[in-house]
Amino acid sequence: MDIKSFVLKKATEAKVSAGELAGISSEHKNIALIKMAGALENKKSYLIKENNKDISAAKRKGLSKAMIDRLTLNEKRIKEMAQGLIEVAGLPDPVGEILKMRQRPNGMMVGRMRVPIGVIGIIYESRPNVTADSTGLCLKAGNAVILRGGSEAINSNRAIVNILRDVAASNGISAGAITFLDTQDRQAVMEMLKLEGIVDLVIPRGGEGLIRAVAENSRIPVLKHYKGVCHVFVDRDADLKMAEDICFNAKVQRPGTCNAMETMLVDEKIAKRFLPAMVSKFKKAGVTVKGCNKTRKMAASCQIAKEEDFYREYLDLILNVKIVKDMDEALRHIEKYGSAHSDAIVTENYGKAMKFLRRVDSSAVFVNASTRLNDGYQFGLGAEIGISTDKIHARGPMGLEELTCTKFIVLGGGQLRE
Amino acid sequence: MDIKSFVLKKATEAKVSAGELAGISSEHKNIALIKMAGALENKKSYLIKENNKDISAAKRKGLSKAMIDRLTLNEKRIKEMAQGLIEVAGLPDPVGEILKMRQRPNGMMVGRMRVPIGVIGIIYESRPNVTADSTGLCLKAGNAVILRGGSEAINSNRAIVNILRDVAASNGISAGAITFLDTQDRQAVMEMLKLEGIVDLVIPRGGEGLIRAVAENSRIPVLKHYKGVCHVFVDRDADLKMAEDICFNAKVQRPGTCNAMETMLVDEKIAKRFLPAMVSKFKKAGVTVKGCNKTRKMAASCQIAKEEDFYREYLDLILNVKIVKDMDEALRHIEKYGSAHSDAIVTENYGKAMKFLRRVDSSAVFVNASTRLNDGYQFGLGAEIGISTDKIHARGPMGLEELTCTKFIVLGGGQLRE
Repeated sequence: MDIKSFVLKKATEAKVSAGELAGISSEHKNIALIKMAGALENKKSYLIKENNKDISAAKRKGLSKAMIDRLTLNEKRIKEMAQGLIEVAGLPDPVGEILKMRQRPNGMMVGRMRVPIGVIGIIYESRPNVTADSTGLCLKAGNAVILRGGSEAINSNRAIVNILRDVAASNGISAGAITFLDTQDRQAVMEMLKLEGIVDLVIPRGGEGLIRAVAENSRIPVLKHYKGVCHVFVDRDADLKMAEDICFNAKVQRPGTCNAMETMLVDEKIAKRFLPAMVSKFKKAGVTVKGCNKTRKMAASCQIAKEEDFYREYLDLILNVKIVKDMDEALRHIEKYGSAHSDAIVTENYGKAMKFLRRVDSSAVFVNASTRLNDGYQFGLGAEIGISTDKIHARGPMGLEELTCTKFIVLGGGQLRE
Repeated sequence: MDIKSFVLKKATEAKVSAGELAGISSEHKNIALIKMAGALENKKSYLIKENNKDISAAKRKGLSKAMIDRLTLNEKRIKEMAQGLIEVAGLPDPVGEILKMRQRPNGMMVGRMRVPIGVIGIIYESRPNVTADSTGLCLKAGNAVILRGGSEAINSNRAIVNILRDVAASNGISAGAITFLDTQDRQAVMEMLKLEGIVDLVIPRGGEGLIRAVAENSRIPVLKHYKGVCHVFVDRDADLKMAEDICFNAKVQRPGTCNAMETMLVDEKIAKRFLPAMVSKFKKAGVTVKGCNKTRKMAASCQIAKEEDFYREYLDLILNVKIVKDMDEALRHIEKYGSAHSDAIVTENYGKAMKFLRRVDSSAVFVNASTRLNDGYQFGLGAEIGISTDKIHARGPMGLEELTCTKFIVLGGGQLRE
C-alpha cells in the first residue's frame, strides 16, 4: 500500500472510532484509563526491552546525550506515565457540559453543549511519554487520536500503543480510537495534513522547525506553540525582595522551559539598589548575564547584550538585562521583542499592575508571580496537552476543555422563524 | 508598487491600528459607531451615485438580475446598514470581560481576560452592506479589519469605507483600523493569506468556491461556513400539527438560506397520516417535492429523489422527502448526507429528544423548532458575522464574543514555581 493510501486508511479508522467515542460514558472512559495505567506498569519489562532497541539505534546514530535521555523509558518514567492516566481519569469529563442555557423571547431555550472535536493528530518528537499522555487526554475528551511520533522512538511508541489498544479492545473501544502511524516514511505527516474533513485538528509538539513545517503545510487547523521569549519587569514600586525571588525563580528554576525568563527589564529608578545584588546572585547560580550599556555600568562583569539577543529564546542559563526609563518603555520592549508567551510585572502600584495586565497581549500576564507558573497544572486545568501561542480556539495552557468544541442546542415548543 | 508590497503595507497599517484599538474604551467605540451610522445616512446620495457606477458596470457585463439586486444600495438598505451599526453600539463590549477567576492553592488568582484577536481579514462577494456590518462588529470587538470585497462592488465598498474612515479619523481612530484593499487584482487575496503573524484570522463570506479557495491557500486560521444540508426528522411521537408548521417554515419561509431544510425525514409509523397533507401543502406553496420510493407510493405526484439529491443544498423551493424506519435510521441518514449545519427533530418523546440532541453533531441541533432559527439574532448574540461550520474556535452563529480570544491573567503575591 502506498503511503497516501496507508494514511487515509488509518485516518478513516480514527474517524469511525471518533463517532463511537463521542457517545460513551465518563465511567466507561475512566475505567479504560485506569486499566491502561495498570497495563503500562504490568508490562514495564516489555516496554523497557522495546525502548532499548530505540536507545541502541540512537547510540549507533550518535544522537546527543540529551536526546538519548529524553528517549529513555525507565521504571520511574513508566510509573509517571501510568500516574498521568490515572490523574486524567480523575478529572471532570468536559463532554456533555451545558453552557449559557437561556430562554429567548419566543420561549425557546438556547444553550451550548460541549462535544468532542473528533479526530486529533498529534505530531511529536522523541519523548515516548507523549504517546500515553496525548492518548489519555484525547480519550477523556471523547476524541480519537492519530499519533505520529519521531522515528527515533518508533519501537517505544509502538509498544505503548500496543498496550493501550489491548486495554481499549477489551473495554469495547475500537482500535481506531488510538491510531498509530507505524511507518518511518516522513511523507506520512504531509499526507495527514491534507486530510481536511477527516482529521479535525493537528497539534505539533516539539521544536520550532517541526511546528513551522506543520503550520505551513496543513489544510487542517493547527494549534501551535512557538517560542517563549518571556520578560519580568521590575517596576520602581516593586517590593525588591519579592522581585529578586521572582526573577531568580523565573530564570533559574528550570531554564530549559518555554516559560522561563529570557530578559529582565529594570526600572532605572531602582536599578542601583536592585541590580548589583541581583546580578551577583545570578552569577553565583551560573547564569551568564548580558546587559545593556546602563546595566554594565552598574555590574561591570556583564557581557554586552546585542540587539538580536533580545529576540532570542536561550532555553539556558543566559539572561538579558535591560534598564528602562519607566513602565511604558518596558511595555514597548515587550511588544517589540517578546513572543506573547508569558510576561510579568513586579510592583506594589495598583494602577500600574492593572495597566500592565491590560496592555500586555501574551498568553499569560502575571502580576507579582513567576512566569514559570504558566502551566496547566498550576492554573488548575488538571492536565495540559501543551501551551498555545495562537489566538484562535485556545491560548495559553490547553487542558481537556480545549480538546472540545460546543454545539448550539435548542429546546423548543414549536417555534418558527417569522 | 507591486501587489505583494501593497498588501503587506496595508496589512501592516492594520496591525498598528489593532494595537491602538485594543486599548480604547467602550464609550469611545460606541460614539464612533453611532456617528458612522449618521454619516452613512447623511451621505446617501453619494453612496447611491457610487453604487450606480457598479450597477452600470454589472449591467454591461450582463450579470444576473439576482446579482444586480444583491449589489444594489437604495435608501432602505442604507438605513438598514446604519441601523446595524447603531445596534452593535448598543451591545455589551466583550473586551475586558474577566472569566473563571479562581484562587489556586498557592494563593494566586488565575482567570482569563477577553481581548481582541487583532487583525481580521474579511473576504466577501457582492453585497456592499457587508462592508459596514463587518467593520462595525470588528471595531466593537477591538479588532482592525481588512476588507476585501468583490470587484463588482468596488465603487460602493470604497464609498462606504471613505465615509466610515472619515468618522474614525475625526474620533481619533487611525485609518488602518478600517483597511480596504482597493484593487481589482485577484492576487491581493492570495498575498493576504500568506501574512501569518500580521493577519490573525480570515473570514470568507460567500459561495462554496470562494470559501474553499481561501481555506486551501491560507496559512492564517480561517473560520469557514460551508453548505447547509439541513434536516427535519418527524418522529412517530411528534405533535403532527407542530411538525407540519415546523417543516413548512423550515422549507418555505426563506428557501435561499443555509439553514433552510433540504430533506424531510418521516418516521414510517406516521407517514400515512402525515405525508399526503404535508406534500400537498408544499405543492401549493410551489415546492418541488422529490420522494423516496415509499414516499411516492403515498404521494404519487412526487418526483424521484436520487441518491445524489440527498447531498444537495438546493437553496430553492425543492425538497427531498424520505421515509425512515425509526430515529436510528434518521440519525444515520443525517450523519451520512448532512453537512453538520442545522438539524431538527419533532417529537413529544423525551428520551428521543435527548438522544437526538446528543447524537447529532451539527452546529445547531433543534427539538421542536425550525432550523431557520439558527441565527445570531435569534440565539441572542445580538449580531452575527456569519455561521461557522468549523469545530475550532467558533461553531454556529458568530457574534462579538467569537471575534475575541482570551489571555490568562494572574494576580499574585510573590508566588514561585516549586
